[in-house]
Amino acid sequence: MALTLYDYGMAPSPRRARMLLIEKAVPFDRVIVDLAAGEQLGEAYRAINPACTVPALGLEDGTLLTDNAAIAAYLEAAYPTPAMMGVTPVERAAVASWAWAAEMEGLMAIAEAMRNSAPAMKGRALPGPIDYPQIPALAERGMLRLAAFFAKLDKRLMGRDFLAINEFSLADLVAYIAVDFARVVRVKPSPEQANLIRWRDAIALRPSASA
Amino acid sequence: MALTLYDYGMAPSPRRARMLLIEKAVPFDRVIVDLAAGEQLGEAYRAINPACTVPALGLEDGTLLTDNAAIAAYLEAAYPTPAMMGVTPVERAAVASWAWAAEMEGLMAIAEAMRNSAPAMKGRALPGPIDYPQIPALAERGMLRLAAFFAKLDKRLMGRDFLAINEFSLADLVAYIAVDFARVVRVKPSPEQANLIRWRDAIALRPSASA
Repeated sequence: MALTLYDYGMAPSPRRARMLLIEKAVPFDRVIVDLAAGEQLGEAYRAINPACTVPALGLEDGTLLTDNAAIAAYLEAAYPTPAMMGVTPVERAAVASWAWAAEMEGLMAIAEAMRNSAPAMKGRALPGPIDYPQIPALAERGMLRLAAFFAKLDKRLMGRDFLAINEFSLADLVAYIAVDFARVVRVKPSPEQANLIRWRDAIALRPSASA
Repeated sequence: MALTLYDYGMAPSPRRARMLLIEKAVPFDRVIVDLAAGEQLGEAYRAINPACTVPALGLEDGTLLTDNAAIAAYLEAAYPTPAMMGVTPVERAAVASWAWAAEMEGLMAIAEAMRNSAPAMKGRALPGPIDYPQIPALAERGMLRLAAFFAKLDKRLMGRDFLAINEFSLADLVAYIAVDFARVVRVKPSPEQANLIRWRDAIALRPSASA
């Protein structure tokens, strides 16, 4: 039996798990959960994952991991090669820090901007089983935070091929997905952000990025 | 030379790093950064940590770790005993997942509720060098999310001594700090949340909790 990834297209959260599985060359089966149709909130998927979120990763013994924090920690421990979270203590710190920034300042900012403004997300300002109303001011703040995140990435990537350490890591993976997903709020690197563009275009060539 | 923790009283973010150092019995020097006086935004501290956040952890070689993600990853790798992030892959997944929930659903909800409502936090709705205005609706949402988090903890702790695995872990540490810090928005476990109260009161007896 292989791992089972509950997955959906290019949505950023399942993409994180999928890219990581592919970077580690771990075989997995895919079950598509149609987020556009709201399948994650239906009874069938709720019975699998009461948190109503995608991705989820089913292990061989039936254990279900229901968020990217769990999935990344599991895969790094169970399949340590290639390391995606650094090896030495200082490397592990750098990857954790930049992956956290990519999540909090990148993906969260985009989620704030999109979920609090898109008509299709009315009443769905946060993922999960509880409905929260949109907060327009939070959408505006998300756009400001996203611009600050792009500037921070471009500055950090001056003279560097990778964000956290001297090789591709989880930090690059999460940040790349954030930069790519920013198109949903019509944000992309400005032409002057040459470091960011170079880094993004290099990652886009990895097989995991187009999978 | 020992580690240097840039620290401040019972503020929840530095408390995470301090409790972890004490649980691992790692010696450290403390430098107090007076958050109440805004010292983290002053030039002296900005020269140490441009992110203007506390905690920061200075290593023997001069490396500075500037967030809890980095600090926890570093300490777990450099001082693996006692393990605070689980040992087996499934344990590591469980700790990562519950620590993430404690941060996103607990500490973030409290921060949203407090920073977007307290007069003293006007213009400081997010930590760090950029000023963001308060969003009153986000304060309200934070209160709802915090109540959902307390209910989730109480349910999970039924028949359990610890949140993620069968021993005290980083997940308990972060969640405990969130539950304790919720007093700043006048939230505490309701008398019916007996599992949550039992767990909280047991952790409060640990030397690291009162340090």
